[in-house]
Amino acid sequence: MSQPPGFPLSEFATATTGRNMTRSAYVAVTCGVVMMVLLTVDPVYAAMHEVIGALLWACLVFFVFEWLIRLRHAAGTGRRAAYIVSFRGIVDAASALAVPIALAAGVGSRSAWLLGMFWVLKVIPGTRGLRQLRRVLVVESGPLLSVLVLFLTVLFMAAVAEFFLEHELQPSSFGSIPAALWWAVATLTTTGYGDVVPLTPLGRLVAAGVMICGLGVFGLWTGILATGFAAETRRDNFLRSWEAVSKVPFFASLGPAAIADVTQLLRTIDLPARTTIIRKGHAGDCMYFIASGEVEVDLPGKKVVLGEGAFFGEMALLGNNLRSADITTTRVTRLLVLDLVDFRLLMARHPDLAETIDAEARRRALENK
Amino acid sequence: MSQPPGFPLSEFATATTGRNMTRSAYVAVTCGVVMMVLLTVDPVYAAMHEVIGALLWACLVFFVFEWLIRLRHAAGTGRRAAYIVSFRGIVDAASALAVPIALAAGVGSRSAWLLGMFWVLKVIPGTRGLRQLRRVLVVESGPLLSVLVLFLTVLFMAAVAEFFLEHELQPSSFGSIPAALWWAVATLTTTGYGDVVPLTPLGRLVAAGVMICGLGVFGLWTGILATGFAAETRRDNFLRSWEAVSKVPFFASLGPAAIADVTQLLRTIDLPARTTIIRKGHAGDCMYFIASGEVEVDLPGKKVVLGEGAFFGEMALLGNNLRSADITTTRVTRLLVLDLVDFRLLMARHPDLAETIDAEARRRALENK
Amino acid sequence: MSQPPGFPLSEFATATTGRNMTRSAYVAVTCGVVMMVLLTVDPVYAAMHEVIGALLWACLVFFVFEWLIRLRHAAGTGRRAAYIVSFRGIVDAASALAVPIALAAGVGSRSAWLLGMFWVLKVIPGTRGLRQLRRVLVVESGPLLSVLVLFLTVLFMAAVAEFFLEHELQPSSFGSIPAALWWAVATLTTTGYGDVVPLTPLGRLVAAGVMICGLGVFGLWTGILATGFAAETRRDNFLRSWEAVSKVPFFASLGPAAIADVTQLLRTIDLPARTTIIRKGHAGDCMYFIASGEVEVDLPGKKVVLGEGAFFGEMALLGNNLRSADITTTRVTRLLVLDLVDFRLLMARHPDLAETIDAEARRRALENK
Amino acid sequence: MSQPPGFPLSEFATATTGRNMTRSAYVAVTCGVVMMVLLTVDPVYAAMHEVIGALLWACLVFFVFEWLIRLRHAAGTGRRAAYIVSFRGIVDAASALAVPIALAAGVGSRSAWLLGMFWVLKVIPGTRGLRQLRRVLVVESGPLLSVLVLFLTVLFMAAVAEFFLEHELQPSSFGSIPAALWWAVATLTTTGYGDVVPLTPLGRLVAAGVMICGLGVFGLWTGILATGFAAETRRDNFLRSWEAVSKVPFFASLGPAAIADVTQLLRTIDLPARTTIIRKGHAGDCMYFIASGEVEVDLPGKKVVLGEGAFFGEMALLGNNLRSADITTTRVTRLLVLDLVDFRLLMARHPDLAETIDAEARRRALENK
Repeated sequence: MSQPPGFPLSEFATATTGRNMTRSAYVAVTCGVVMMVLLTVDPVYAAMHEVIGALLWACLVFFVFEWLIRLRHAAGTGRRAAYIVSFRGIVDAASALAVPIALAAGVGSRSAWLLGMFWVLKVIPGTRGLRQLRRVLVVESGPLLSVLVLFLTVLFMAAVAEFFLEHELQPSSFGSIPAALWWAVATLTTTGYGDVVPLTPLGRLVAAGVMICGLGVFGLWTGILATGFAAETRRDNFLRSWEAVSKVPFFASLGPAAIADVTQLLRTIDLPARTTIIRKGHAGDCMYFIASGEVEVDLPGKKVVLGEGAFFGEMALLGNNLRSADITTTRVTRLLVLDLVDFRLLMARHPDLAETIDAEARRRALENK
Repeated sequence: MSQPPGFPLSEFATATTGRNMTRSAYVAVTCGVVMMVLLTVDPVYAAMHEVIGALLWACLVFFVFEWLIRLRHAAGTGRRAAYIVSFRGIVDAASALAVPIALAAGVGSRSAWLLGMFWVLKVIPGTRGLRQLRRVLVVESGPLLSVLVLFLTVLFMAAVAEFFLEHELQPSSFGSIPAALWWAVATLTTTGYGDVVPLTPLGRLVAAGVMICGLGVFGLWTGILATGFAAETRRDNFLRSWEAVSKVPFFASLGPAAIADVTQLLRTIDLPARTTIIRKGHAGDCMYFIASGEVEVDLPGKKVVLGEGAFFGEMALLGNNLRSADITTTRVTRLLVLDLVDFRLLMARHPDLAETIDAEARRRALENK
Repeated sequence: MSQPPGFPLSEFATATTGRNMTRSAYVAVTCGVVMMVLLTVDPVYAAMHEVIGALLWACLVFFVFEWLIRLRHAAGTGRRAAYIVSFRGIVDAASALAVPIALAAGVGSRSAWLLGMFWVLKVIPGTRGLRQLRRVLVVESGPLLSVLVLFLTVLFMAAVAEFFLEHELQPSSFGSIPAALWWAVATLTTTGYGDVVPLTPLGRLVAAGVMICGLGVFGLWTGILATGFAAETRRDNFLRSWEAVSKVPFFASLGPAAIADVTQLLRTIDLPARTTIIRKGHAGDCMYFIASGEVEVDLPGKKVVLGEGAFFGEMALLGNNLRSADITTTRVTRLLVLDLVDFRLLMARHPDLAETIDAEARRRALENK
Repeated sequence: MSQPPGFPLSEFATATTGRNMTRSAYVAVTCGVVMMVLLTVDPVYAAMHEVIGALLWACLVFFVFEWLIRLRHAAGTGRRAAYIVSFRGIVDAASALAVPIALAAGVGSRSAWLLGMFWVLKVIPGTRGLRQLRRVLVVESGPLLSVLVLFLTVLFMAAVAEFFLEHELQPSSFGSIPAALWWAVATLTTTGYGDVVPLTPLGRLVAAGVMICGLGVFGLWTGILATGFAAETRRDNFLRSWEAVSKVPFFASLGPAAIADVTQLLRTIDLPARTTIIRKGHAGDCMYFIASGEVEVDLPGKKVVLGEGAFFGEMALLGNNLRSADITTTRVTRLLVLDLVDFRLLMARHPDLAETIDAEARRRALENK
């Protein structure tokens, strides 16, 4: 659904307020950023600075426009203040205003356009899974901060020690603690530029200790994040599946405890229209329940449509390894995926479900003979 | 609550003995460390060495003072020996004595003040979550030490091999095993300064092996810490929640097995006074129990106060996604947080709790109509 | 089973279509790659370019041949299209055609042979465990992409900032944003070549931030992958064990819930013929069930053969720590391994299994007296 | 228990065969390695080469001696072949023979002694927790090998690509694929020496991709190892605790299922004699069961001895936070540690255990009044 060349304003306004990023906004961000980069490459700039300038201005106009429409929309729904102080609002404002303000303040043109770097931030609020990342960082903020305190303590003490040990031999590299901190941060993060290196034996011993601490800090950091992620993934999956599961009539007969149980076994996926889920002849090891949307089964000679609450792909779990038909979504569809592993567990715990699936599978097999 | 300019001694004494770090101590540490850094920056030192010197002396006096008061306080409670040998006691002593002793021993003034680097250690005992870090390191010390032994073995053998292969070609860089060890540690930690690099083909082959070992050591290290952290996080959370849960009357009716069960689902958070927990109109996915403290619900036209044992935010879990009122703490409050996921599990396992929450939610909805 | 020197074509065809890589294909890939490398080493090339050329041609002929046979075989089974668009098909085609096309297009001989680098890709489809890796990447693609977006955002903003701060001082290193990106990527991945280094104090501050972000990105990345792997390992193990377990008569008496339970405790291993599983006198802490294949127990004076469904090694779990006989596979055998830990759990949950194993162990002990 | 200066041979033989490393062996390894390092430092060597030589010879004689005794001891117990092919046997042989053989073969004295680097390997078999590491590597060998294949593939293709792109501009650095491989390995492991750096824009793009792949490989590696470690830690802990638990009469009344359950909650620790486990007045959050050995409780006015099967420290879990007495081991003791978390769970599941502990705690409280 790319925007028509001379797209009408009202349509653009609808598109731009409803979602975080319209397709045209992605185009504008990409184009603006590329132009901004080219602006700094002298030979390219010399050859085509008019085109670059024009495109940059076009992008800027787009962002100003988008920002104004969003502001008006937010005001219309009485949430202007909330929009303005939200991350998205601040980024939109910075994208629209930073460059003009810089130009107005008399900053040179090529420097001013560098403020277009804020444009790239517009992509962030739309990133799937970033909320999950943020939650992990919040929940684990305690241990992460402890590691940061350790990191900074080691950093500072290493810098002081190296300053003491090296500043006479290398007054230009270790001549002050800030200079030594530069060495320390490059060493403790195991970046190791090598532009500044201790030369005295004691200085090298301290440096070796710092490098090993670097590994340790790294390990702690990762260990904490891994722990947080495991918990968050489980939580996120549950939240997304819960609602979908309770909508599937197949599971509705189960009590709430069983539904909670089932939810933990299912994974939710969202698919766009016209996506092939199952391809005939391929091996399969999971079955699907339709939480919302619709799929089309391409049987020999006829097409069968399955709607909300139906399931398919169960053959693969009942002994027939190869998929027997192509199955494609007809519109945006949310599926619940049940892996073979979890299918076994589910069937073992809820034998009545097993019977329902079995009966349905037999019915289909007969029908499609 | 910053200290009044000429704060009375007794008040300072009370503040300094009760907690690890008073606010004034944080100020002193920050100020002292910044001055110490500036001391080593020649142009700054030349311009304002009197100010720097005065501030350093002020910080030192503060630390000496603090140490003496803590010593007297510890002696008063009969725990002087315990304080002196504790990490905090040693750091306090080093912060107070290192610089004066160095000055007395005739060390140059600018070098002596470098010993102020111990001041930064005063921050460590107060870091939340550091106890948790230490426990992980203790519990996992076995495997971590094994990895360290592997690390040192690879380090040493790599250094000997490179010394053998390279010392004729590069007598200045690989002229002795200690010199080769310097290369080895920078390589095995993947720091890679590049100041010393093997040049012979065989030497480079060995170096490639060392780098890959470096990745391996890193991975082992992290894997161990991640495992330890997962266990420790679960444990720490349980410990903090257990006591709080048993104080909430809502859960008191449950047997001990159910309480243990509930405790594993709840997360504890401590909030200062006047913190907004829930903001009207925001989306919510958890409910709260008050373990201690008090919150104020800002309903249209009236303010309702909820005390220990009450719960709030349950609407979000019962279908109403948007928070319907601002809720703020009135004093230091400990809350138990119940996520939507865990709410479902809890309700499924303990249907009587579900009824209580449901009844209360209906009552409130009626009342606030 | 290395190919006989002048191996008949039909036999080769059978071998090459059945499996991903015949032993001769491994030889060809290794030989081709080594020759390709030697081609670029001038002294070696000068000395023996005829040998190298001949071997390269031989390898190429082999790959062309293999590709044609596979194409014909795929056509014969009606799956030519599927083969051609599969990863394996594309790699086979590239291996066979890239070099000849380059030579035909007039590329110099030494450059054209560099396209032999595609040969190394032939090894990939045959790597065990790669499917597991791919599944982790797919399941965790959401969070991984978020981290990538964060990574790229930090990368870009760091490059713009450094370009702004450094391009006047170092026009050759930071003269354009692409040049600054080169610095940024080496820094954010903590590679740290050190060929380009910021020199201004502000530039170094930004760089320090970038390095610390590098650690953070690394930690997130690893945390996500670790979480995904834990889930995938459990799933993969279940899938491989499930089928095998249900074939063992010993477990057949259990209901489906118990089988699912048992499956989670067992690990599957596949062994070639004539592998010694248990060595007399060694300590043991697991027992084995034979899912398929056959083993030979080397008792004093006689040899006992155990077939599908039998178990052995149970003595180690019933108090006798040292293995009492050598046990060797006689043909390709799939075993289910039960660790001591899981043995205890299993026996506790299914006392009837415990009795069966106990009775069998007593019978054997009597018999072998 | 350091060896007496002129220790009798028989005593030494007993010591050296029973354990992996006697204390004197640790001394010999340390001394030998330090001397070996000093041998390569020219000024030190010039000053004291006689002392160094003498000590090296002494260490060598020690290792030869140790090896011979172990060989004879192994022969005496009929396990000579097993000893010779074991890792320990090979290391012992290499430690004893490498240097003399090199000297006999006419290698220069300073080079020959470098073979003393094998001495350091003698420490490895005695490292606690290394068996655990090895098991993780074996169990996860499948995915680890896949990652290695990916690593090598990326390495090779990157080297070929950079050779193609850079060898004309930098014939000395990228003049052959082996030279490019040197760059590739330093980049892919994120070591980044910076001695060889691509200069063309395309070369830098490839290099950026390689660095990001480096992060990915690292993450996969770590994720796999973390997963393996979590499983292994659980397993190892169970194995060590199982036997100990079943010896404690307190748990003997429980059925096997409950014992398996209890075992998963306990952690085993081994303590040497005269170690203080609990210090009066300290805060405590776990209780202990004595699996083997003995402890002494230092009550006011008397000392109480607790033997195998007894428990202590339960007060801390029953409300009294501060330990009320010093408790010290009297000989080597194995304890089972029960954390507060797990105590709650255990008590909830097994109320009879709770009563026993409660009754005993009351009895003790009365007695010690």
